[in-house]
Amino acid sequence: MSIGIIGAGQLGRMMALAGYPLGLRFTFLDKSEDSPGAQVGDIVLGDFMQAEDIRRLAGQVELLTYDVENVPVEALEAAASGIPVHPGPAILGAAQDRLREKECFARHGIETAPYRSVDSLAELESAVKALGLPAMLKRRRMGYDGRGQQLIRSEAEIAKAWEGLSGAPLILEGFVDFEREVSLIGVRNRSGDTRFYPLSENRHEDGILRLSIAPAADPALQATAEKQLAALMEAHDYAGILTVEYFEKAGRLIANEMAPRVHNSGHWTIEGAATSQFENHLRGILDLPLGSTRPRGVSAMINCLGRMPALEGVIRHEDAHYHDYGKAPRPRRKLGHITVVRDDRASLDAVIDELLPLVKAAEQA
Amino acid sequence: MSIGIIGAGQLGRMMALAGYPLGLRFTFLDKSEDSPGAQVGDIVLGDFMQAEDIRRLAGQVELLTYDVENVPVEALEAAASGIPVHPGPAILGAAQDRLREKECFARHGIETAPYRSVDSLAELESAVKALGLPAMLKRRRMGYDGRGQQLIRSEAEIAKAWEGLSGAPLILEGFVDFEREVSLIGVRNRSGDTRFYPLSENRHEDGILRLSIAPAADPALQATAEKQLAALMEAHDYAGILTVEYFEKAGRLIANEMAPRVHNSGHWTIEGAATSQFENHLRGILDLPLGSTRPRGVSAMINCLGRMPALEGVIRHEDAHYHDYGKAPRPRRKLGHITVVRDDRASLDAVIDELLPLVKAAEQA
Repeated sequence: MSIGIIGAGQLGRMMALAGYPLGLRFTFLDKSEDSPGAQVGDIVLGDFMQAEDIRRLAGQVELLTYDVENVPVEALEAAASGIPVHPGPAILGAAQDRLREKECFARHGIETAPYRSVDSLAELESAVKALGLPAMLKRRRMGYDGRGQQLIRSEAEIAKAWEGLSGAPLILEGFVDFEREVSLIGVRNRSGDTRFYPLSENRHEDGILRLSIAPAADPALQATAEKQLAALMEAHDYAGILTVEYFEKAGRLIANEMAPRVHNSGHWTIEGAATSQFENHLRGILDLPLGSTRPRGVSAMINCLGRMPALEGVIRHEDAHYHDYGKAPRPRRKLGHITVVRDDRASLDAVIDELLPLVKAAEQA
Repeated sequence: MSIGIIGAGQLGRMMALAGYPLGLRFTFLDKSEDSPGAQVGDIVLGDFMQAEDIRRLAGQVELLTYDVENVPVEALEAAASGIPVHPGPAILGAAQDRLREKECFARHGIETAPYRSVDSLAELESAVKALGLPAMLKRRRMGYDGRGQQLIRSEAEIAKAWEGLSGAPLILEGFVDFEREVSLIGVRNRSGDTRFYPLSENRHEDGILRLSIAPAADPALQATAEKQLAALMEAHDYAGILTVEYFEKAGRLIANEMAPRVHNSGHWTIEGAATSQFENHLRGILDLPLGSTRPRGVSAMINCLGRMPALEGVIRHEDAHYHDYGKAPRPRRKLGHITVVRDDRASLDAVIDELLPLVKAAEQA
């Protein structure tokens, strides 16, 4: 079975590494012969924003999936008329647009921050009046890792935020004074079976994920989140991994965004769960029986940004697993991650306390 | 860091899949662009028995290792004058020749079956007199998976065994009426650190490994075997994974053969140990800190020969991991394996009882 992956970043690379043992073959679509995916699979050189290039990839494989969220939905739909594309273009369209995403959450009774669509300075001003301050002004599309958004703390900052982001459709979101951020990763196969990983706690720095720890929540929160993902997946006849990121506040889950793909906050599952999110994504899109999502102890995933820490320094820590994506160093770029699996949270925290300074020292070197 | 792997079979393929997360690149030497290794890494087309082809590979990488045991030692030594080759050619030479192997074991006080070198029918007859019957007549070189050997049960079978195997140097080995077969897999890095996996129990069918279960021995046997491997590795300034296969009889370990490479009886370590034998082999040859060999519960590895069982039928068993090497079906050929990890031996045995018939049914289809 040959799988085409639109985008050859680290997500596609880890998908291929998980899929080879299943006997699958992988062909990527991306611009560089030395992209993370191309280093471990075949590559069709092209632009994943271009329908024609997606069609070229589709002509060489039996099933399409993607590791990037900004693939044009129309191009995907055109390709899907020839071969299966999973997850389906419909939910991808919602995930690409913060307004449609929030409307989708609302349709399924999933709480979000209050929001207003903003297309002019006047709309922004009236939105600020309605939601109060502080509030987050965000581009509706193409934002990731904290880009394309601006916190407005006072009325004096409204004009500057507008200047910084206008020119594209915007959304103003009421500020959620959350206690922590968590995410749920679920998987569904085309037959409708579902599985869910334990909620992970996610800590961001400057808008970029730095640390995930899982399992990290009580059964009540887990049940609430699972019910919500199950409803989203059922409604979209979903296949593959779906991730929803939440703010947690006073025992409530407030959905922030969703990603119809494997997710950075699930990288711990490679060593920390019986079946990784990458393998389960493949099982889901191929309509195979889903694998156990049972955690092996408690895991932490630390993102390495800008510059990798030395391999030797990391793996001299018993139970530290090193993941280098094969990317060139560049400030704030996600180059790799480290996973640590331990039996208990206290000893896990002790290892994090050793590794995190080492990771940050490498970044600042 | 670019690693050259001589031979692009399943062992090299699994080595590459384990090494990509460490940021390593892999180039294989083998005859086919569709070999298991070439499907996941770069390939230099050539013959790993030819020194010139090994030199071509060596010219493209920074360090050489191998996934086949029959690489000509002289060719490897020639390549080693340019870049590091691990494990070192000296121990490979001993592992390639059953007579030198037994002499090597003897030098390190490791018990073997009694044996005699045989180069003529007269020598065979006198060896039979000395060792008694039954006895195993084997080619000294190039035998694997039960090929190139013949059991002699009575004097009447001596001439037939000689006819079947003569033309190459032979060895007669006293028959060991063992209770079971076990193997120890150890790893050493160039700095001299060592780690050992728990002994696995190995069951063969028609000379080919069918099933490995680990951990499978008491601490006393484990300690004995570790001491022996440590001595072998130390004496050869060894780097990488070394495997010794033993017969177990009345609480004694009788060494049968060694393999200076990752080993089929260690495939369970991918899911069943904190660090796989493939990653630890790479750590050893790169002189990196070695990874934990701690088992995760108890594991079974079932070899799939000739024809793979259907993916779906295998992975509907919770905890069954499927490994397809990407090889074309052929009778008795090792095409893949299945690993099952469970918390206790009784429930592991129950899963084996379900999967083994399924694997065999596929082979006979």
